[in-house]
Amino acid sequence: MSNTPKAKDELKNVTFIPFNVSLSIPVGSTILDAIKNANLPVTTSCGGKGTCGDCIVQVLKGKYTMGTSAALPENLRKQGYTLACKTEVNDDLVVQLPKFKQLSVKAITDIGISESNRKFVSGTFEFEPLVKKLEIKVPEPTLENNYSDLKRLQLTLINKFGIKKSDCEYNILKSLPHILRENDGHITLILFRSEESWKIIDAISGINRKNIYGITCDIGTTTLVVGLVDLKDGKLINTVSGFNQQIKCGEDVISRINYAERPGGLHELNELIIKEINNLIQKAIESLDISCNDIYYATFSGNTTMIHLFMNIDPRHIRKEPYVPAMNKIPLISPWHLGLKINNEGIIHISPLVGSYVGGDITAGLLCTPVLKSKGKIFMFIDIGTNGELVIGNKNWLVTCACSAGPAFEGGLIKFGMPASAGAIESFKFTNGLKAQYKVIDGLKPKGVCGSGLVDLLAELFINGYIERNGSINKDKVKDKYTRDDTGKGIIIVDAAECFWGRDMIIYENDIANLIRSKAAIYSACSLLLKNLGITFDSLDSFYISGGFGKNISIENAITIGLFPDINRRKYFYLGNTSFYGSYLMLLSDKNKNMVDMASEKMTYIELNTEPDYMNEYSASLFLPHTNMGLFPSINVLLKRG
Amino acid sequence: MSNTPKAKDELKNVTFIPFNVSLSIPVGSTILDAIKNANLPVTTSCGGKGTCGDCIVQVLKGKYTMGTSAALPENLRKQGYTLACKTEVNDDLVVQLPKFKQLSVKAITDIGISESNRKFVSGTFEFEPLVKKLEIKVPEPTLENNYSDLKRLQLTLINKFGIKKSDCEYNILKSLPHILRENDGHITLILFRSEESWKIIDAISGINRKNIYGITCDIGTTTLVVGLVDLKDGKLINTVSGFNQQIKCGEDVISRINYAERPGGLHELNELIIKEINNLIQKAIESLDISCNDIYYATFSGNTTMIHLFMNIDPRHIRKEPYVPAMNKIPLISPWHLGLKINNEGIIHISPLVGSYVGGDITAGLLCTPVLKSKGKIFMFIDIGTNGELVIGNKNWLVTCACSAGPAFEGGLIKFGMPASAGAIESFKFTNGLKAQYKVIDGLKPKGVCGSGLVDLLAELFINGYIERNGSINKDKVKDKYTRDDTGKGIIIVDAAECFWGRDMIIYENDIANLIRSKAAIYSACSLLLKNLGITFDSLDSFYISGGFGKNISIENAITIGLFPDINRRKYFYLGNTSFYGSYLMLLSDKNKNMVDMASEKMTYIELNTEPDYMNEYSASLFLPHTNMGLFPSINVLLKRG
Repeated sequence: MSNTPKAKDELKNVTFIPFNVSLSIPVGSTILDAIKNANLPVTTSCGGKGTCGDCIVQVLKGKYTMGTSAALPENLRKQGYTLACKTEVNDDLVVQLPKFKQLSVKAITDIGISESNRKFVSGTFEFEPLVKKLEIKVPEPTLENNYSDLKRLQLTLINKFGIKKSDCEYNILKSLPHILRENDGHITLILFRSEESWKIIDAISGINRKNIYGITCDIGTTTLVVGLVDLKDGKLINTVSGFNQQIKCGEDVISRINYAERPGGLHELNELIIKEINNLIQKAIESLDISCNDIYYATFSGNTTMIHLFMNIDPRHIRKEPYVPAMNKIPLISPWHLGLKINNEGIIHISPLVGSYVGGDITAGLLCTPVLKSKGKIFMFIDIGTNGELVIGNKNWLVTCACSAGPAFEGGLIKFGMPASAGAIESFKFTNGLKAQYKVIDGLKPKGVCGSGLVDLLAELFINGYIERNGSINKDKVKDKYTRDDTGKGIIIVDAAECFWGRDMIIYENDIANLIRSKAAIYSACSLLLKNLGITFDSLDSFYISGGFGKNISIENAITIGLFPDINRRKYFYLGNTSFYGSYLMLLSDKNKNMVDMASEKMTYIELNTEPDYMNEYSASLFLPHTNMGLFPSINVLLKRG
Repeated sequence: MSNTPKAKDELKNVTFIPFNVSLSIPVGSTILDAIKNANLPVTTSCGGKGTCGDCIVQVLKGKYTMGTSAALPENLRKQGYTLACKTEVNDDLVVQLPKFKQLSVKAITDIGISESNRKFVSGTFEFEPLVKKLEIKVPEPTLENNYSDLKRLQLTLINKFGIKKSDCEYNILKSLPHILRENDGHITLILFRSEESWKIIDAISGINRKNIYGITCDIGTTTLVVGLVDLKDGKLINTVSGFNQQIKCGEDVISRINYAERPGGLHELNELIIKEINNLIQKAIESLDISCNDIYYATFSGNTTMIHLFMNIDPRHIRKEPYVPAMNKIPLISPWHLGLKINNEGIIHISPLVGSYVGGDITAGLLCTPVLKSKGKIFMFIDIGTNGELVIGNKNWLVTCACSAGPAFEGGLIKFGMPASAGAIESFKFTNGLKAQYKVIDGLKPKGVCGSGLVDLLAELFINGYIERNGSINKDKVKDKYTRDDTGKGIIIVDAAECFWGRDMIIYENDIANLIRSKAAIYSACSLLLKNLGITFDSLDSFYISGGFGKNISIENAITIGLFPDINRRKYFYLGNTSFYGSYLMLLSDKNKNMVDMASEKMTYIELNTEPDYMNEYSASLFLPHTNMGLFPSINVLLKRG
């Protein structure tokens, strides 16, 4: 409104989407300065020179001018894209960080427990939740039947519902004389079962026809998924997801733990996660005429660090030798302990942790596999996220370990890597030389490559001889697709014209090295775990995979690059987000919850860091598919045939 | 300080001891006006004319002048006594209400579970409380033993203390990583046992040599008794008592319930009781270098109305047909629910209620009798306070009822009646005609007569023919001790010269009628209960009496007046404050607590109001000792002999 010239120290407001972070910054600063001040996870490889294009953002609101840069094609400029490092803040701005825009609910929660996957599941689909609603009529007292209010209520539960043992909270008791008489003894009870006894956690006068609900939540390091469950029938009626807002304090668990050690850091991380979960709960219910007070039950799963931060418990000992979490099995917690916006009398269950790097995502995830119900066979379950976690065994015994796979297969540390969401290349093939044939999630122009696409890409590069077994680029074979720039040597895999960003999509030698390191970490962990147990890969009955690859991962290609062992392909099953669906199964029935608790009790946790053979195994795996080609006979045949 | 003349509407402050009630009142009002404004329980029979002396008070601080009145002897005036109705407030005053001064701790808690009484007790004296303190050393984690903090702690409890199942509160878990490392794994735990499982309710870093404590409390309608118990050995190390500050809102349970129905009334009553219990806790610990945070366990007993008010639960349905309390067995409550100033993580147990007029004072009190441990014999237990409560039965069956005995035997509704405390005549005999021989508690000049003294007095008046069997005064026999004033006909029992107040102590015909009504209510309740069961008094193995009579109650005289049945005197035992000692036994061991819970479950509660025979029985008992002299053969013999 004011026409006075802008003073040098005048402040403008910048809001970043999807983080909802706002901050004030002096006029003349760049958007990149604001990003850095807000501690948002945007890195630039050119150091802010406007050449790499890493800091691309989209300005949704506010006026701005972008300085000169060749890194941003004209068509993107027209759509409001700009480079943060070259754009001065001279107005209040709302800025979208595109890298984080692309993650859609669909991509995260697809797959899951489809009808066809149900056959694998250890958990039961019987709906027998620990929290239930009853509408009852308590008889009025008479001189002949002058039992106390609570006793008459308890007798009604015995006589009409067979609930032999029940008790109630002080707050309920306090209101009981009143609510029993308000509607002639008609009351609606919410009960929570704990072993053989039921506890009345809420009592409402009259018959309340409204349903009650549960929520189930997967707390990922990067993303959160919240499911809303109707406690009438156990149906998952809504699923929403969002970013773990802690991202701005660090992208992986180690940097989060470091952040938590700062003064006030733990509190800040805890607030971020609770606030976002509360947002997602609100989002899940807002269109359905449901109040958060109608939510009486919540189940959570997540890795060990995420659960500590969610519970506001100091995680520092997780990353310090000898790497111990605060707890394994998690005691019952009340919503008000955590500030969770569900009914204050509601019940929270969190899946148990096994060790510092094998968390509740794995224990809950096991419910989505047949591991916990089969006795004779031996199964392997592997969850690949930023870390890889492995479990081997069956109903009788379980051994587990974690490996630092790194985020390569989630798209991290890879120039054109991205999560398995809209715009991601999810499968990839070369035809006619280096002509790319690919499939993009949601059919958009490709923005990047997700895990399953990267597996395909690496396998295709290798099998066609464009890269050597050690990952170095075979310049002679690549010919005109070869490129070299500030980032290093690379291969153009999709031409600029085809790409969403209007720039060549390049895989660099460094990206390839990162992918190889990741696959080596995972393979060597599997291999070492089996060796410790005196078992070969062939002894495995099945191999269950979960994580953020994208649903169409090619097992053949994963074997080709040596990520997974060269065993019968029919033994492989990809299950999607098992942490979320395991958490959902826990909510459905306490049998599932007890199964998980028992499994976690008997899991033997092996700390790979302390295994002297691990580095040997790892080094031997840093080739495509492996230094020992004898381990990958079918790939050997393929290479010889090729 | 100011010399300006006092304005008519100038206010002065009056504080009443022992109620700690302060209020401002215009200069020129009387102390009686202030008493009325403060709703304190002082009544006058002369209507404030300065003739009855009922409103005698002692001014401890402040200047005052008393108007003329014959009712206050000079010696008392010199001691600062004055009549509230005749004393204007012209200065800030601190005023002691003497009637309520006399109750001393000693009198209330005397007797109890003496060594000689222990043989009666159903409860165990084994010390096995539900809350205990352990000092433990949790091993540091190593790569080989990298269990979580909680798990290592739980394993220590298993290995060193045989505690197989333990869990912890969220707040403990939250601090565990820190406190385990602060003193090399040395920590002090407070554990609470619930059935087979222990819950860690507090954890302190290092070895804490301080003891932990419990409190046990009898919540009486008039008085509160708080005992402090060392949880190391179960010893009762301090006992304090005070008034139930609710007295100013009504003297008996019915008037308290009426008060609770006013807007804000329940809240006010609850605050009064909690505040006074907190005061007494403070008083119990202040000289002993104990903090209220060292108190982790509390047991309470009290009548049904008191427990409702203590728990802030609406008591209105107690006094309305069909007379139902909110609950019988009382769920676990946290100190912060009630605002009780003990450790916030502490445990509270309240003895169970049977019906609206048979409360936790009775159920806990049963522990102090052999009723709950004997199978073959039949016992009667009777607690006489403002109400009389009766229990008959043994380990296998229990029947109970209450009767509105009125407060006569506690000194209420009797002109010179008073509680069994310093200055009370506790035993009484006539010698040489109407010459009184009496024993006064603490050897003072007599101030009044307590329950045991009133029993003696009534028996002596009757047996010597000074009163008729219907309670009317035999003027001819009483001769010069006969008196008649505004209150009615009376007998001078102690001359003015001997009395503390310097006035004749008179028992009026009206007092005698009240005593007869009380004894009739109790006897007829006992009698009806037995008739309902088809049992005679002779079938009773023993007859246990508790209440505020005073410890030297003469059973012979109680039988003479027809309060108790004419059975073998050796069957009678007076036990003192069984509510308090029962509550203490509950604290000692959960076996006792469970015994009480189980007993309360199987007690059959008979509502006398609904028994058509009760009024007949009662009317027949309104004679001394009874209309049917055949029921009192030994008294018949005595009368004929006399």
